[in-house]
Amino acid sequence: MIPRYTPDDFAELWSASTRYAAWLSVELAACEVMEADGRVPAGTAAKIRSLNLQLDPMRIEEIEKTTRHDVIAFLTHVEELAGAPARFLHLGMTSSDVLDTSLALLLVRATDKLIERCDRYIDALAKRASEYEKTPMIGRSHGIHAEPVTFGVVLAGHLAEAKRGRTRLSAARREIAVGKLAGAVGTYAHLTPEIERKTLASLGLEPETVSTQVVARDRHASLFFAMASVAAGIERLATNLRHWQRTEVREAEERFQKGQKGSSAMPHKRNPILSENLCGLARVVRAAVPAALENIALWHERDISHSSVERMFVPDITTTLAFMLDRAAGMVDGLVVYPEAMKHNLDQSGGLFFSEAVMLAMIQKGRPRQKAYELVQQSAMKAFHGEGAFLDNLLADPAVIEVLSEAEVRRCFDLDHALAHASFIVQRSLAAKEG
Amino acid sequence: MIPRYTPDDFAELWSASTRYAAWLSVELAACEVMEADGRVPAGTAAKIRSLNLQLDPMRIEEIEKTTRHDVIAFLTHVEELAGAPARFLHLGMTSSDVLDTSLALLLVRATDKLIERCDRYIDALAKRASEYEKTPMIGRSHGIHAEPVTFGVVLAGHLAEAKRGRTRLSAARREIAVGKLAGAVGTYAHLTPEIERKTLASLGLEPETVSTQVVARDRHASLFFAMASVAAGIERLATNLRHWQRTEVREAEERFQKGQKGSSAMPHKRNPILSENLCGLARVVRAAVPAALENIALWHERDISHSSVERMFVPDITTTLAFMLDRAAGMVDGLVVYPEAMKHNLDQSGGLFFSEAVMLAMIQKGRPRQKAYELVQQSAMKAFHGEGAFLDNLLADPAVIEVLSEAEVRRCFDLDHALAHASFIVQRSLAAKEG
Amino acid sequence: MIPRYTPDDFAELWSASTRYAAWLSVELAACEVMEADGRVPAGTAAKIRSLNLQLDPMRIEEIEKTTRHDVIAFLTHVEELAGAPARFLHLGMTSSDVLDTSLALLLVRATDKLIERCDRYIDALAKRASEYEKTPMIGRSHGIHAEPVTFGVVLAGHLAEAKRGRTRLSAARREIAVGKLAGAVGTYAHLTPEIERKTLASLGLEPETVSTQVVARDRHASLFFAMASVAAGIERLATNLRHWQRTEVREAEERFQKGQKGSSAMPHKRNPILSENLCGLARVVRAAVPAALENIALWHERDISHSSVERMFVPDITTTLAFMLDRAAGMVDGLVVYPEAMKHNLDQSGGLFFSEAVMLAMIQKGRPRQKAYELVQQSAMKAFHGEGAFLDNLLADPAVIEVLSEAEVRRCFDLDHALAHASFIVQRSLAAKEG
Amino acid sequence: MIPRYTPDDFAELWSASTRYAAWLSVELAACEVMEADGRVPAGTAAKIRSLNLQLDPMRIEEIEKTTRHDVIAFLTHVEELAGAPARFLHLGMTSSDVLDTSLALLLVRATDKLIERCDRYIDALAKRASEYEKTPMIGRSHGIHAEPVTFGVVLAGHLAEAKRGRTRLSAARREIAVGKLAGAVGTYAHLTPEIERKTLASLGLEPETVSTQVVARDRHASLFFAMASVAAGIERLATNLRHWQRTEVREAEERFQKGQKGSSAMPHKRNPILSENLCGLARVVRAAVPAALENIALWHERDISHSSVERMFVPDITTTLAFMLDRAAGMVDGLVVYPEAMKHNLDQSGGLFFSEAVMLAMIQKGRPRQKAYELVQQSAMKAFHGEGAFLDNLLADPAVIEVLSEAEVRRCFDLDHALAHASFIVQRSLAAKEG
Repeated sequence: MIPRYTPDDFAELWSASTRYAAWLSVELAACEVMEADGRVPAGTAAKIRSLNLQLDPMRIEEIEKTTRHDVIAFLTHVEELAGAPARFLHLGMTSSDVLDTSLALLLVRATDKLIERCDRYIDALAKRASEYEKTPMIGRSHGIHAEPVTFGVVLAGHLAEAKRGRTRLSAARREIAVGKLAGAVGTYAHLTPEIERKTLASLGLEPETVSTQVVARDRHASLFFAMASVAAGIERLATNLRHWQRTEVREAEERFQKGQKGSSAMPHKRNPILSENLCGLARVVRAAVPAALENIALWHERDISHSSVERMFVPDITTTLAFMLDRAAGMVDGLVVYPEAMKHNLDQSGGLFFSEAVMLAMIQKGRPRQKAYELVQQSAMKAFHGEGAFLDNLLADPAVIEVLSEAEVRRCFDLDHALAHASFIVQRSLAAKEG
Repeated sequence: MIPRYTPDDFAELWSASTRYAAWLSVELAACEVMEADGRVPAGTAAKIRSLNLQLDPMRIEEIEKTTRHDVIAFLTHVEELAGAPARFLHLGMTSSDVLDTSLALLLVRATDKLIERCDRYIDALAKRASEYEKTPMIGRSHGIHAEPVTFGVVLAGHLAEAKRGRTRLSAARREIAVGKLAGAVGTYAHLTPEIERKTLASLGLEPETVSTQVVARDRHASLFFAMASVAAGIERLATNLRHWQRTEVREAEERFQKGQKGSSAMPHKRNPILSENLCGLARVVRAAVPAALENIALWHERDISHSSVERMFVPDITTTLAFMLDRAAGMVDGLVVYPEAMKHNLDQSGGLFFSEAVMLAMIQKGRPRQKAYELVQQSAMKAFHGEGAFLDNLLADPAVIEVLSEAEVRRCFDLDHALAHASFIVQRSLAAKEG
Repeated sequence: MIPRYTPDDFAELWSASTRYAAWLSVELAACEVMEADGRVPAGTAAKIRSLNLQLDPMRIEEIEKTTRHDVIAFLTHVEELAGAPARFLHLGMTSSDVLDTSLALLLVRATDKLIERCDRYIDALAKRASEYEKTPMIGRSHGIHAEPVTFGVVLAGHLAEAKRGRTRLSAARREIAVGKLAGAVGTYAHLTPEIERKTLASLGLEPETVSTQVVARDRHASLFFAMASVAAGIERLATNLRHWQRTEVREAEERFQKGQKGSSAMPHKRNPILSENLCGLARVVRAAVPAALENIALWHERDISHSSVERMFVPDITTTLAFMLDRAAGMVDGLVVYPEAMKHNLDQSGGLFFSEAVMLAMIQKGRPRQKAYELVQQSAMKAFHGEGAFLDNLLADPAVIEVLSEAEVRRCFDLDHALAHASFIVQRSLAAKEG
Repeated sequence: MIPRYTPDDFAELWSASTRYAAWLSVELAACEVMEADGRVPAGTAAKIRSLNLQLDPMRIEEIEKTTRHDVIAFLTHVEELAGAPARFLHLGMTSSDVLDTSLALLLVRATDKLIERCDRYIDALAKRASEYEKTPMIGRSHGIHAEPVTFGVVLAGHLAEAKRGRTRLSAARREIAVGKLAGAVGTYAHLTPEIERKTLASLGLEPETVSTQVVARDRHASLFFAMASVAAGIERLATNLRHWQRTEVREAEERFQKGQKGSSAMPHKRNPILSENLCGLARVVRAAVPAALENIALWHERDISHSSVERMFVPDITTTLAFMLDRAAGMVDGLVVYPEAMKHNLDQSGGLFFSEAVMLAMIQKGRPRQKAYELVQQSAMKAFHGEGAFLDNLLADPAVIEVLSEAEVRRCFDLDHALAHASFIVQRSLAAKEG
């Protein structure tokens, strides 16, 4: 989390205040359930709630310097502020009951924010995909002109991918919406499954099937992967945008803002720096996945090695992805598209991309595939090396004309036919639930 | 894929013969649909099927040396064997239509095998978790004795984790059960969505929402992550087994086979080498995830950079996980458990793990938490340093006895009470669908 | 960089003030060289230096909101403060000349701090390795008792590894002590190699052999790897400490500070939390290596995708490693060692670890290796299963006594002999330059 | 290691025969030293050597099925073949003495092969960098035309990077040219440092400073990183080649071989598939680095978790890099360069890249940097949007002409001046020892 890449709501979400507030909410939720159970005097939680405690993160950290234990420091501070009733908090609980349950609360909140942003990104892609549904451009494989596509189809591909990313975020949300109130080693030694169930339900969470001291870390790894997969989808779009914006291609570019300077040395430059930034950030998000996987194999009923990883990567990675989604949505919204440049590039191939249609026509006339391939390649290679146009070369080749009439050859050179299914594809992507 | 870690069925699955057979099955499935569509003479596929072609991988590789293109080499070979009808294969298709669709076929098969193995691993865990449902052992956090658990609860935790892994494999199976027959850039220029839909349906696959030249690679990344998460769960079990088998702990160990030698120098040693092996293999499986994520951002309508990664890691990682699941299931089946050693270790703590019960009892008698904590810590620390037993120290401390009667103190030292919910936990894990 | 894991000097090093001060130092160094060259009026740099500018990071960021270019914002702010002479700064330079050269300055400073800390860690290990040079403990392979070592030898192994880490940091320091003043695409279009050489020399840096717009990123990847290798060495020590501190082993433990609480629920617990924390942080440091490697393949004369990765990971990872080294050095200094516990654990094996000596003695008397192995294994396995002591079993076995006299058998059970080379090993490690 | 990516010498190097031969060479080298020491009857090694044993890997694996221990199986097989003298092999040694020492032998051989291949790649780059030392092309930052470079300078950058990679391979070779003959836990319990020193010296290796049962794994991690850094350098070149070969750029392309087919559907296509393949393989090589780092923290005197990782990744990664270096060298050798296309693309910018020269000229005439920047940007932006040529716009702008004479403006548009230092850069790279 560096300010440059931190949306305000994530700065707030991962602040010390929010964290301690979440801890208190877990303690109070548990306290209320224990009141009903008779373990704690009725009204304890209500009394503490009524005080509307203003927890002081600085004070808690000061106490922690002595106790070297964050939850004990927190409880000490709550007792400082709330007095006697506070002693009934945390009864029979272990630190991780609070920590992991509130981590679940915060991760659910973070994931909801990510899903919401993902929806905005999806909407932006859907809008632009519709807009350019029928705008032809050259499709490229290996960076080389292949056959025509439409820009809408291309964006629809990114849209479908974004929807799959969203589906993975949703699945991961279910995986991490899990807390525990099961005590030091997960046995409910001083608690009951019932207390846990009710407390977690009041917080919108499910109980861990089998806790150790903590909630199992494969759940968190799933969330990290889901985030990395969304980031990789954005990286693919950003990489493509970088290609589109190349000087030689210039089919689309990032919105260049008034006053923005592209280079301290070259005033005329307009660089796809948002896209490049997104590519870098995708590496950052991806980097956390192996660490999250290494966090799974905690020893016995838990060790605390995962904690430092999470202290750094939980805020960092959720925040970075939030920033990426904001930026990506804005990038799509503001994308400047040059259909005429797309047309221009498409035309440069001199119809070479119709070679397959010609080949297929010859096969359908009974020529063996390899023979047809060679015939077409001859005319194509000549054109590629500047000797005549592809269509002319074909028409001038007796071996071709022996098989296809001029009209039949010309019929192969039909862009509308090549793109006849573009709208179908775009519509399928728009309609898809999960991409 | 090295022979040492390759189950026979995976050696078969990833052989050249199986691959070319899958290609042929895709070509023939498409051919049949195109026959119905009138594009290809009726009976073409049937004619080729009737020849029961014996494809020769060596011959295909020989042809590829000239063509430098594997699918063309394959088609050339099919034409060598099947003659004229073969020229109607691959009509309007691009190499990736065959390659990605058959990759989907093979990955589905691989994933089904993994799920099946995962089920065996789950069954093994379930059986042993039931068996030791009530066998007490000391729970450990940070490697330090904490409070009692049962061995069944511990295994139930691994069981729940394995079920979650299985759920992720199933979800990933849905993600990769997707093929494409959409031509060079995904536009169905010489095909139709209908031909694709029917062909894929006959192969048990869904069509990609929006193809480029290939099926989107975020799908494959999901499968790699699902595999890594299963591997990490096995790693956690293997790590715990390595702890249990330590000379000083010896609560459980791997089955030691007749004739097996533990060390070339130390004849008495029995080492948890299967578990250590599994820990290493989990690193291998994990290593593929970042590469799979990097594969997503292909350029434009595709580049072929993902291919070399997949040629190596698709067989390697699916096979390694299959081997891990076999080994892990066998390890659980054969696990030699020493309940008396568990009892012995549990007793060594001198009941220190009942400290929390005592503390809670004092809090319930109205003592502030911090005060209760200090009182208990005094007696505990004495015992920890060899001065008296914990229970005796408590009973000898006037400040304790002022709060709790001797009977009340003794009541805190109750193992059955501490483990009262163990069966509930094990049963919940057994019953859980998704862990 | 989160406060919890950030040493003060690293907070300072990666502050905005330090960054802008470094930029200014590069601009002024270049300016002085250009004055000598006649490109800039003599005395320009001196004039600016004399103003002792107080750069205001907040103001620079404000300007950047308009320019969207950090170096231009910086230069604008310098001109605000320094007036006319400032316009001669940055002459013929490109942003990256400033950014990459000052990044080199800061990374050199960071690496020097890491090396210094590494030296403190090395010193701590050397001191304790000497202290326990002859303290016997059981060596363990696979977590199972093997043959005796000394605790000094074990620490000497960590020492040698730390020295190798230091060597890698030094090598990486040379790799990243490289700047550039070569203009927009590295061609010195408006500068000269001579200006670059002199400017960098005055800053303690070498020129990049061939710049693009930036210094090559394989250099930075080397530093990230060197850091990860040091972190992994610490992880190995921390992992071992976690083993030593286990309840059943308790051969050494982390210093437990007055007032520290091990657990909110279990007052008696003393957990190796520093070591576990270090294991987690090693994962974080390791996580950056793949991202640093991905940063290498920038497009053409550069893209800016590496920048976001470095904005996050350069401060994060250098700082985290500094924290780790501090913590590791303190951990070693404060390590509480229990030689009597080591002796106790060693004795528990009943001399089983002398089995190899017995086997070798039999081989030297001419018995085939496999036969000797089996004879020893018999007595060992009995002892292992509680039937008699190993030595007694051997002496009671006629097949053994046929080969070795009682005196010869007893001579094999000699701890001093087994550890005769321990001091040599420790001294070799202390003396080693590079581990 | 899949046949497709395995050079013959690496297939040989990592074969079972070579492995067992290396084991035997270690055993015999140790035996000879022990003969001199009097531990083993003189002539033992000579006798075995004279038998010229034909080890049978299949037989060893068969024996291993019973012993479940590879070195014991190997020794048993040697005894089968060599009879009595074989019983003096392995005396006082532990399996890892053989395994890790022979791993060092094989890794040294592998690294030497990699360095040799790296030299061929370096030579190829050097040759082409010289060839195109003065061939102008447009330099690109962010994929956007920036200022001119020469193709030689670009290749010289790749050359310098390759040399740095070679330096890292050499350093890593020193790190892994380390064996051990120190017994079960590294204490020379039944051996001596002297025996180790002499044995290793005869094999060209150094002794590990402090062994555990094994050689320390940070050494191997260094080699994996060195390999990944070389691969990343190749990835950068391959990425650039993919850009050069783009249809719209076509400044250089891979040699297209006779008979090669670019696409099964589009006969005219010439795709940079070697480069794409190299980009994918760089991901594979990179993937092993985290696993190698995880291998470092072995437990106590060793566990065997690293072994499975190394069984897979040691052959895989060394072989893959060997293949990459071969392919990259061939790619550079065969690179088809189109200087006229470079010229064509360069000219398309209409001299916009001279904007900085104009800006600097105005600054030197005393205009404030920001003012100069704006003036130049005006003319540049007009040109960029198709309104006039950049030079004409400048000359037509009274605010420009007020500062610079027409001659002064025209002087800024000088390509030779812009590339004046190109040869210096190329020569510096050719001369550099370490890049």
